[in-house]
Amino acid sequence: MTAAIDFYFDFSSPYGYFASTRIDELAQKYGRIVSWHPILLGVVFKTTGSAPLPQLPLKGDYAWRDFERTARFHGIEYHRPTHFPLPTTQAARAVLWLQNHHGEDLAAAFAKAVYHAFFVEDVNIAEPAELVKLADALGIDGRAMDAGASSPQIKEQLKAEIEVAMAKGVFGSPFVIIDGEPFWGFDRFDQIEAHLKSGRPTALRAVAPPDTSKEKKPA
Amino acid sequence: MTAAIDFYFDFSSPYGYFASTRIDELAQKYGRIVSWHPILLGVVFKTTGSAPLPQLPLKGDYAWRDFERTARFHGIEYHRPTHFPLPTTQAARAVLWLQNHHGEDLAAAFAKAVYHAFFVEDVNIAEPAELVKLADALGIDGRAMDAGASSPQIKEQLKAEIEVAMAKGVFGSPFVIIDGEPFWGFDRFDQIEAHLKSGRPTALRAVAPPDTSKEKKPA
Repeated sequence: MTAAIDFYFDFSSPYGYFASTRIDELAQKYGRIVSWHPILLGVVFKTTGSAPLPQLPLKGDYAWRDFERTARFHGIEYHRPTHFPLPTTQAARAVLWLQNHHGEDLAAAFAKAVYHAFFVEDVNIAEPAELVKLADALGIDGRAMDAGASSPQIKEQLKAEIEVAMAKGVFGSPFVIIDGEPFWGFDRFDQIEAHLKSGRPTALRAVAPPDTSKEKKPA
Repeated sequence: MTAAIDFYFDFSSPYGYFASTRIDELAQKYGRIVSWHPILLGVVFKTTGSAPLPQLPLKGDYAWRDFERTARFHGIEYHRPTHFPLPTTQAARAVLWLQNHHGEDLAAAFAKAVYHAFFVEDVNIAEPAELVKLADALGIDGRAMDAGASSPQIKEQLKAEIEVAMAKGVFGSPFVIIDGEPFWGFDRFDQIEAHLKSGRPTALRAVAPPDTSKEKKPA
């Protein structure tokens, strides 16, 4: 088994949402698994000096237009959210708590549900009560998740996860790292596929020691 | 005949260079012509509060890597330039002078030669003498071009052209506008092709009055 594909995303990122609808299928096609890493772009932007795309001068109007057109082009459901941008901290923490307590698969399923709620059903995912409902629908104890996500341990973990991501060069959403090769943006999925297809990284990885850490961090 | 496709670019933009190698073929495939618009991102960035990609924190290293990988992915010749970034004002002015005095086709050929010199042959295109050489190779009187490009009239025209571009929503390079539909980035060429293929814009344009302006501005 080769190393996981690291997928970094902020729940307020439309391009991150688009990527979330494709990353697992793409990885499976090449026999890889995905490690989902929620991050907070607000923290990252303090380092890069950037801001959410729709808030930038000139770029804002274009961005909204491009979100719709890109969704249409790729055949992805999308509805412009009413509440935007909004705080995604609790949703990110919930994903970490789920990873710790219910494993990667359920955490990823929850992450997809959050993205879908925000960018298709126009749910205000900054509301903890909405996150609880989404968890309950997946058979997770939503109230336990909400309490766990609000714990000091998870708060610290999210901070540290974002520090690690930035140390690895992550500066946007979606951001994918495969065997040390970084890809920024949903519009790099064609290059990601070419990279996976080449098989080169897989061969290289076979030489490296297997990743046995619980956190499924890239080696 | 339908309206020209407006292609905005800064000579210091690697993605602009990539686009310059494809835009004319793409347009021809759909019976369209291209109007080449040199701009200065330095002026645009004063409005957007941005900076050249390779100079941004975290994004810089990624950008250099992405330039190389994107060139390889698309089969485009590329050599990382030694002098970067560099002033592209004189090159931009030269293109305008050529458009005014020798027409669009020769101006576009010169623009492609400048891009190739910079991103393949590692020529310092900020040096007026290098631009003169590139012009001479195309059968243009390079010294006349150099003098013309330095005239107050052309300086004013470039300023005004950039103002017009920003008023139309242009904020980066490459930037393409087709029948009012804006596309930012070389990675939108797939969506540009889908747009041209749909035929919808062409049908709409047939209703609009023909563009008879000398400057070949979009209607």
